[in-house]
Amino acid sequence: MINGERTIERPLRWGMIGGGRTGQVGYKHRTGALRDGTYQLIAGAFDLDAERGRDFGTKLGVADDRCYATYQDLIAGEAGREDGVEVVSIATPNFTHFEITKACLEAGLHVICEKPLFFTVAECDEVAALAASKGLIVGVTYGFTGHPLVHQMAAMVAKGMLGEIRIVDMAYTHGFNSGDDDSADAVKWRTNPKTAGPTFVLGDIGTHLYYLSEVVLPHLKVAKLLCDRTAFIPSRAPLEDHATVLMHYDNGARGRLWVSSVDAGNMGSQRYRFVGSKASVAWSDTHPDQLVYQVQGEPERILHHGMPYLEDESLACDRMGALHTEGLGDSWANIYLWIAEAIDAAERDDEAFLKNHHYPGIAAGTEGVRWLETCVRSADAGSAWVDFE
Amino acid sequence: MINGERTIERPLRWGMIGGGRTGQVGYKHRTGALRDGTYQLIAGAFDLDAERGRDFGTKLGVADDRCYATYQDLIAGEAGREDGVEVVSIATPNFTHFEITKACLEAGLHVICEKPLFFTVAECDEVAALAASKGLIVGVTYGFTGHPLVHQMAAMVAKGMLGEIRIVDMAYTHGFNSGDDDSADAVKWRTNPKTAGPTFVLGDIGTHLYYLSEVVLPHLKVAKLLCDRTAFIPSRAPLEDHATVLMHYDNGARGRLWVSSVDAGNMGSQRYRFVGSKASVAWSDTHPDQLVYQVQGEPERILHHGMPYLEDESLACDRMGALHTEGLGDSWANIYLWIAEAIDAAERDDEAFLKNHHYPGIAAGTEGVRWLETCVRSADAGSAWVDFE
Amino acid sequence: MINGERTIERPLRWGMIGGGRTGQVGYKHRTGALRDGTYQLIAGAFDLDAERGRDFGTKLGVADDRCYATYQDLIAGEAGREDGVEVVSIATPNFTHFEITKACLEAGLHVICEKPLFFTVAECDEVAALAASKGLIVGVTYGFTGHPLVHQMAAMVAKGMLGEIRIVDMAYTHGFNSGDDDSADAVKWRTNPKTAGPTFVLGDIGTHLYYLSEVVLPHLKVAKLLCDRTAFIPSRAPLEDHATVLMHYDNGARGRLWVSSVDAGNMGSQRYRFVGSKASVAWSDTHPDQLVYQVQGEPERILHHGMPYLEDESLACDRMGALHTEGLGDSWANIYLWIAEAIDAAERDDEAFLKNHHYPGIAAGTEGVRWLETCVRSADAGSAWVDFE
Amino acid sequence: MINGERTIERPLRWGMIGGGRTGQVGYKHRTGALRDGTYQLIAGAFDLDAERGRDFGTKLGVADDRCYATYQDLIAGEAGREDGVEVVSIATPNFTHFEITKACLEAGLHVICEKPLFFTVAECDEVAALAASKGLIVGVTYGFTGHPLVHQMAAMVAKGMLGEIRIVDMAYTHGFNSGDDDSADAVKWRTNPKTAGPTFVLGDIGTHLYYLSEVVLPHLKVAKLLCDRTAFIPSRAPLEDHATVLMHYDNGARGRLWVSSVDAGNMGSQRYRFVGSKASVAWSDTHPDQLVYQVQGEPERILHHGMPYLEDESLACDRMGALHTEGLGDSWANIYLWIAEAIDAAERDDEAFLKNHHYPGIAAGTEGVRWLETCVRSADAGSAWVDFE
Repeated sequence: MINGERTIERPLRWGMIGGGRTGQVGYKHRTGALRDGTYQLIAGAFDLDAERGRDFGTKLGVADDRCYATYQDLIAGEAGREDGVEVVSIATPNFTHFEITKACLEAGLHVICEKPLFFTVAECDEVAALAASKGLIVGVTYGFTGHPLVHQMAAMVAKGMLGEIRIVDMAYTHGFNSGDDDSADAVKWRTNPKTAGPTFVLGDIGTHLYYLSEVVLPHLKVAKLLCDRTAFIPSRAPLEDHATVLMHYDNGARGRLWVSSVDAGNMGSQRYRFVGSKASVAWSDTHPDQLVYQVQGEPERILHHGMPYLEDESLACDRMGALHTEGLGDSWANIYLWIAEAIDAAERDDEAFLKNHHYPGIAAGTEGVRWLETCVRSADAGSAWVDFE
Repeated sequence: MINGERTIERPLRWGMIGGGRTGQVGYKHRTGALRDGTYQLIAGAFDLDAERGRDFGTKLGVADDRCYATYQDLIAGEAGREDGVEVVSIATPNFTHFEITKACLEAGLHVICEKPLFFTVAECDEVAALAASKGLIVGVTYGFTGHPLVHQMAAMVAKGMLGEIRIVDMAYTHGFNSGDDDSADAVKWRTNPKTAGPTFVLGDIGTHLYYLSEVVLPHLKVAKLLCDRTAFIPSRAPLEDHATVLMHYDNGARGRLWVSSVDAGNMGSQRYRFVGSKASVAWSDTHPDQLVYQVQGEPERILHHGMPYLEDESLACDRMGALHTEGLGDSWANIYLWIAEAIDAAERDDEAFLKNHHYPGIAAGTEGVRWLETCVRSADAGSAWVDFE
Repeated sequence: MINGERTIERPLRWGMIGGGRTGQVGYKHRTGALRDGTYQLIAGAFDLDAERGRDFGTKLGVADDRCYATYQDLIAGEAGREDGVEVVSIATPNFTHFEITKACLEAGLHVICEKPLFFTVAECDEVAALAASKGLIVGVTYGFTGHPLVHQMAAMVAKGMLGEIRIVDMAYTHGFNSGDDDSADAVKWRTNPKTAGPTFVLGDIGTHLYYLSEVVLPHLKVAKLLCDRTAFIPSRAPLEDHATVLMHYDNGARGRLWVSSVDAGNMGSQRYRFVGSKASVAWSDTHPDQLVYQVQGEPERILHHGMPYLEDESLACDRMGALHTEGLGDSWANIYLWIAEAIDAAERDDEAFLKNHHYPGIAAGTEGVRWLETCVRSADAGSAWVDFE
Repeated sequence: MINGERTIERPLRWGMIGGGRTGQVGYKHRTGALRDGTYQLIAGAFDLDAERGRDFGTKLGVADDRCYATYQDLIAGEAGREDGVEVVSIATPNFTHFEITKACLEAGLHVICEKPLFFTVAECDEVAALAASKGLIVGVTYGFTGHPLVHQMAAMVAKGMLGEIRIVDMAYTHGFNSGDDDSADAVKWRTNPKTAGPTFVLGDIGTHLYYLSEVVLPHLKVAKLLCDRTAFIPSRAPLEDHATVLMHYDNGARGRLWVSSVDAGNMGSQRYRFVGSKASVAWSDTHPDQLVYQVQGEPERILHHGMPYLEDESLACDRMGALHTEGLGDSWANIYLWIAEAIDAAERDDEAFLKNHHYPGIAAGTEGVRWLETCVRSADAGSAWVDFE
């Protein structure tokens, strides 16, 4: 159980780039970071509108003179202070991730970045090298993977409770873009390749699916895949608002993944099913507190978070205890905590700790971008099978 | 509401081939046929074991001398009687469907046959011609499509309540063949191409999905498809115990269909989701009494069978009334009733009636076989896209 | 598994009183009775409107001259025939049950009657004595108790899988009478004490709950109870459209039971929860194919009908097999089958069989009426505790 | 939407009494209070074991010298500081609430206290008078009532969307005390009247139900009630581990409420159903993100938190946005926020604000204790009806 006792010596001095009043995701970052006293929000370049950003920041408790107009100002302003920020979260549109991340790392700051990380694997590799050379951490906010029952699934797979994995079934679909009006700010940049990168829903929501499957099935590798994507609203082309990806894993397992933002009316959001030769587990973020565990030939079992019968790996990251709902905020809090621990270890040059410490870092971010590149390659080849390499 | 009042003049004189004591499906045929007094079971060749078949048949109330050892005996024996059977149901393994159907039609009997109908489209065409020349009906027992909420979905699509159809998502998966022991009678013949035909789960359960989608979406045609099939239990190859089919419809809609008998522990059975530009409907035979209707941007709606707010097409085939569960037997009863009405019309040469009368007939059976042939063609080409023609 | 093989020598010659075209319950009787070839419908007095009843009966396949205008005519007409009915079902309003049942028994006919059986325990006792003296069966159509999972619960309780029973929680509520318009035929007689007897919802739906609890918990007896009833639509007083009953059982267990026809919008219908010192089971007729089994401290279990892990008592009365939904019609079919077996045994004077044969008979019907009388006694005493005796 | 912008000028200086490492509820207080930068945790008397409390407090970031051994030390130590605490949360066993609250108020501190507030209404009245005389706030942590959909229900009732309220159905049951081992710390004090007060489950969980119903139905008053309580584990008597309460409201509505800690295996926790003459709403904290809204005669509706179709009152307190699960922590955060706003207003003597500001305060706490007293009075009278006054 996580009960708020700090696992690192002192709070990290933390700043935010983006995530202002009009954004959707800023609050998730803050509620994740500020839960355990592990981060202190002391600076920010929250908004393209500098005045609005300042007003917002001060209402968050940030000092007026540390609410910056631009990320460059933030880096410069904080660099001169003894109590300057040491880690920065980036919650801006995709096309800015690469340049901001590089600038922060150059300035000696750890980075926590939204997904999809960058546009290309080449960019990921460049940043990975830079971070490594500086001894800095790059975390990626795959915010759903902090749920205790995700780690229950991973532990069950690791212990062989499902048998050999055969089938991976994943979907993240909603219908909020069923109509053709893309004028809202949060939609406009996501449907434009210049600002969103080479994908829309594959990057926006598909990467969540793919990363979570890596957490649960770390031993499986995709061998080849096929991506069939389309834009039901033509103005979104060449980006997609709907895609299906078939995957063959190296052990012979079959995967299918569906992402869509035109699945009219769907409030089911994410759902996962991992099937082995003996049993399966299924989880959805709609009702994240329960896990369906089905052993062939036995009654279905519903496992509830926080119950003593769960694996230690799941109980270790439970916050609310049985019967009390864990929300998305609790999941983000775990992600932020794990990244804080990585940063703390990096500061202490504790390589042994880092070796065994699990958190979504640069490798996970890179793998997500590689998967997106491969999906686009398949789609561009006429939705053909392509090797994943 | 169906309340048991006979819609045809008199009960049809009915016989069964197969469907004996050890089979799984015979009871479903009988409970479907005998619900409304539309059929009278008066003859049968129920079992390969003639003695057991006779014992069984008499316990069903069939006269001892009309429990035949073989289907040939049944045809011959009944032909000589003034009160001989006029329609026969075939509930035998796939490889016998074609020869028995032909023999029955030759003898002037209407036929009701299990799915998948035959092995090839050529066989279907031959039988269709024979039936047409004789003025006889061939019904196919797609037993799930009698559910009133299936017809609610069809009516909603027809009335444009979903908008333009964009996405078709279908699955029928279970885990009863997760293990490698195929020695049970009902499994053995299904996993052998000589007795099952060119597919296992695609034919056994996938054809249910495909036909139901035709009922709901009669105006959509598959333009091309891709089938990825595999046998997780190697001895089942070249047949499959798991397959995914992607489909592009002629209006641009995208479909995906999943069938599996190694989806360990899954008790969810069939589930369908039809998504349009405005709204979607979802239905599963696990909880067949309710339909999920989701208009983008509005609260989800759960529709219950038998309620006055449903479309007339759905209420017309309701048997139990609101709050009272309809079972699979009720669905089969509707299928059998609709086939009886077709037979009655054929006997009366009522072409006008037949023109507008909906039931799963030879055309539906043929379309299912064509879909299977196309799936196999795709799989054989390396899970490549192939035109559906 | 029930597969349609007749368990009695020959079909019973069966007639119906009531249950005509405009009634709600007639089809349930017929689909229950005609499923297994155990009954043959050969006569009826279906309707107060004799002409409509005749038209209806002939459409059910009953001979024109055996469609009678009144139940008296039916009794008289059939008495004179060698092939006359031997058992009659009564599906008429409550106030006629007693007189028709007595008349049928006097004429030597077995009776199957709707619930609540009669108005008073005294009437029940009189009929029980009459039936006993004639060697005739009186069955009561508690139609939900044929579900295989009801018998699974009973077997689990009997085997001690729940531990000592502590809590019984039952409800049967709907909202179809939320409005104040009681002019529909099916409502009018139910809200008038002259035609309905001393209760409305307690008798109409509460007796289903109470009888099912007796099936599951045959060893528990109610020691005292308290009934709080009210009529939210004043014109229904002194009858109730809403009632709560608290019960103390002789072993110290506590029960609560809720019935309502003004539970606006509720489509949940019946739900049951039986809690013991170790575990609980919960079942609802909304999703009758699954049973929730919860052992304290272990994952919840969902049991599905027809699965081999169930108790023999449940599998014995399964009709559709796993994954295939059982409907209310299947449950009625079991009730009718068990009553047929009782009638057959009574005809054969097979007392040994009858001793161990479970079906809802005159004792169950009497117990239901006794419970209603006690509820009314409590309510009349100001919703006070009264002994159940 | 709540996005973390502080609604009060500065963070409140906050301390905790109880809620240490071994307690269950401390983390909920902290995660509630620290979400929005509205409170700063700067002092605590966390644990009866002073050393463990100090170790714990420093790991929460509290200065070593402000981790006190006792609440008296905390009050004394902080009183002498300019930056001393101004509000204190009490998360200790019930029997200490009264004395600690009084001491804090006497020292000029605002108080946030666990439920049930005190043992008697007399104590509540005494504290209310004291707080009023000092201009201090007493908040009560009815932690579930911060959920946005609770306020959706309240708004729907207020706007007449349900019609006249007729039925209130509430339950909070679990099975964690099904066994007879009460030796665990968290159980031991709860089952002893000296430390728990006159009730066990009624106070521990029943008060949550009762308060939430007051939030949703502020215009309804209980006129009389009947409480039937029992201890299935005899050593718990005279306290109860199971109780049912029937209530008659002043408008004629009927309520029933069930609490139990021996409902073996139940993971359903809290569930509420409010039924009016036209429609009903149902909510459970198991799936708190959805609300079932049932208009009689229309399809059921499922409402999801954060969706634009909800009432303003619900959207105003949403934190995560549609599709993203709100957890119990989010609900607590709202409660703590509303109490902070009350404290801030009290400090500013802003009576106009306080008049219209909704939060669980001393009146709510008193009403809960009055309800408990009345339940005990009924139970002691043989589970008889008693007036609620």
